[in-house]
Amino acid sequence: MAKNILDTGIKLVKNVNRYNFGKGSLSELNIILDNRRELTINENNKRAVIFFIDEYFKNNMEPLSKIIFLNNDKIFYVNTKDEPHTEVIDEYKKEIINLGLEDPCAIVGIGGGISLDTSKAVSNILKNEGKASDYQGWDLLKNQGVFKIGIPTISGTGSESTRTCVLTNSSTGLKLGMNSDYTVFDHIIMDSELTKTVTRNQYFYTGMDAYIHCFESLNGNYRNAIGDAYSRESMRLCKEVFDSEEMMSDINREKLMVASYVGGCAIASSYVGVVHPFSAGLSVVLGIHHCIANCIVMRAMEQFYPMVYNEFWNMVEKQKIVIPAKVCDKLTDDEYECLYNSTIIHEKPLTNALGSNFKEILTKDNVINLFKMM
Amino acid sequence: MAKNILDTGIKLVKNVNRYNFGKGSLSELNIILDNRRELTINENNKRAVIFFIDEYFKNNMEPLSKIIFLNNDKIFYVNTKDEPHTEVIDEYKKEIINLGLEDPCAIVGIGGGISLDTSKAVSNILKNEGKASDYQGWDLLKNQGVFKIGIPTISGTGSESTRTCVLTNSSTGLKLGMNSDYTVFDHIIMDSELTKTVTRNQYFYTGMDAYIHCFESLNGNYRNAIGDAYSRESMRLCKEVFDSEEMMSDINREKLMVASYVGGCAIASSYVGVVHPFSAGLSVVLGIHHCIANCIVMRAMEQFYPMVYNEFWNMVEKQKIVIPAKVCDKLTDDEYECLYNSTIIHEKPLTNALGSNFKEILTKDNVINLFKMM
Repeated sequence: MAKNILDTGIKLVKNVNRYNFGKGSLSELNIILDNRRELTINENNKRAVIFFIDEYFKNNMEPLSKIIFLNNDKIFYVNTKDEPHTEVIDEYKKEIINLGLEDPCAIVGIGGGISLDTSKAVSNILKNEGKASDYQGWDLLKNQGVFKIGIPTISGTGSESTRTCVLTNSSTGLKLGMNSDYTVFDHIIMDSELTKTVTRNQYFYTGMDAYIHCFESLNGNYRNAIGDAYSRESMRLCKEVFDSEEMMSDINREKLMVASYVGGCAIASSYVGVVHPFSAGLSVVLGIHHCIANCIVMRAMEQFYPMVYNEFWNMVEKQKIVIPAKVCDKLTDDEYECLYNSTIIHEKPLTNALGSNFKEILTKDNVINLFKMM
Repeated sequence: MAKNILDTGIKLVKNVNRYNFGKGSLSELNIILDNRRELTINENNKRAVIFFIDEYFKNNMEPLSKIIFLNNDKIFYVNTKDEPHTEVIDEYKKEIINLGLEDPCAIVGIGGGISLDTSKAVSNILKNEGKASDYQGWDLLKNQGVFKIGIPTISGTGSESTRTCVLTNSSTGLKLGMNSDYTVFDHIIMDSELTKTVTRNQYFYTGMDAYIHCFESLNGNYRNAIGDAYSRESMRLCKEVFDSEEMMSDINREKLMVASYVGGCAIASSYVGVVHPFSAGLSVVLGIHHCIANCIVMRAMEQFYPMVYNEFWNMVEKQKIVIPAKVCDKLTDDEYECLYNSTIIHEKPLTNALGSNFKEILTKDNVINLFKMM
């Protein structure tokens, strides 16, 4: 069943080319950048590096103090209030060209999904003509982007290992990634020291992005042995971390970093399920960030994923995490309509989860009632 | 403990750049090769592809019938009686140069560890001056080799995802790989249709290469979260396959292919333990192939890995596999001495398994007695 819509083009997988792993591995960045800088324009002018760094670090640079910045490098501190918009990516491109830095030797993203996705998108758009929105979709990029390095400072989104960078186009409302082999990082550094200062709630929400994606895949109609293997291991690591007494211990921060990476690897050869379409609704209509939106959606998932539902809420309780409630309590009819539309549009994951007749289960009334449970 | 010898240079990992996965994915090879061939020397002369194919297929080409060979391509059928020797690699290089094919657009290895390692070594040596033996060791290669594609037709060695190709130098007896990022395949195709015709015993021996490597890693002193994750999942898949009623069913052949790939990924960030040093002894002194040698060594591993020992022999029994016995029964004192020496030389895995005082446990008498149990 449902072969046509699901069995499409995910047989070829592009890996992150190289990775460093382990506490303290951030210092390897300088070696990589030194090698890249040697690709000089001329003897007096080593090529610049452009950094996209989560704005949190602007006044907290200590964790990044090992990084050697040179004079002609450019640092952008990424605002994480909003998830990345195509217009913002276009503005970065313009500013970089104005600075004469359109051919940097590397782009380095340091942060969570927002900063990493921003760095991936800018890397792509610097080597492909036009605007970011031209490349939202599948395999639209024509050229390899700038050499890009990803350094996650929070674990769970898997952005470090995926072939997408999710962008919202404000004028059309479209939230869609640049899905392309060119979007994959050339190099990533997974240093669990960098996730020490994350708040407990955020650590949980983001970690659960991996967990939720993986159980959606493992409960889907579309399955394959390699996606399953990555999903199972990622989920197992998440459970170990969030079932433990101290989810943010050194070893658990390492484990969650691995869960995020292999969770990202799973995405290449699997589909999500019911959670993500509803979560997309919350993001698009109410502007709620992806990871916390996923957790909010879990309030209404008992009927679809009963076992995981219990497991999830036990972990929430054990770690004393606050999940917002009643976020869809008093909306207008138009807003509920929008929520329904921006959920039901996600045919692939819903077919994966519920079969091709998913609209019979997810009637408009049912969808709105589910949102009212959140 | 034992930090000095074990904590060395395995923080940076090079992945296979791209992979295809799934039944029937072999046909993707033609697309990849078409793209590579377009890198023409001149309009009339598309560049050749060099194939290294397990000799088994010479008279059984049906499983490979989808592959489009062009006139100027060269096929070498790889003799799998012996594991690869440096001299054989040098001879391939000479012959390829004599044929005027020293700049092929791709090298394709099709087979088990022997054929894959051969193709990796030839790819390297065509772009690096001198002999294969010059590059046995760590990070000695200077240049990127020919673009190389690996297509496993049996699962377990992990050669498809590792950064080494194990070679024996006949003149020195040294068995050591070209360990280098350059050794990693650029592309691999994992098509479980290709493992259908493997004999049951060989399927088991080779699959157990992944299983054994992984439990050695997970029982070692040197551990890290990413190596552990890969090892656990690989081992879990192997157990599912070999604990099942039909280890060679379609789904189990897919699973074992994943176990092999992620097992290979684990090797990059982990060490083996007691089995591999003893197994190397059997290979070097008695010429027994690696995978079956590992299984033979398991006869003497109860004291080191009691739980896995039972699990392993239960799987042997369940699948009705023949593991040779008494292979070290009537050797000369000199031969036992050689076995001891070629085992005890493997300091890293033995330190990983038993600590830096491993020679107190593995006295010469003990080692010889263990061999006598095999």
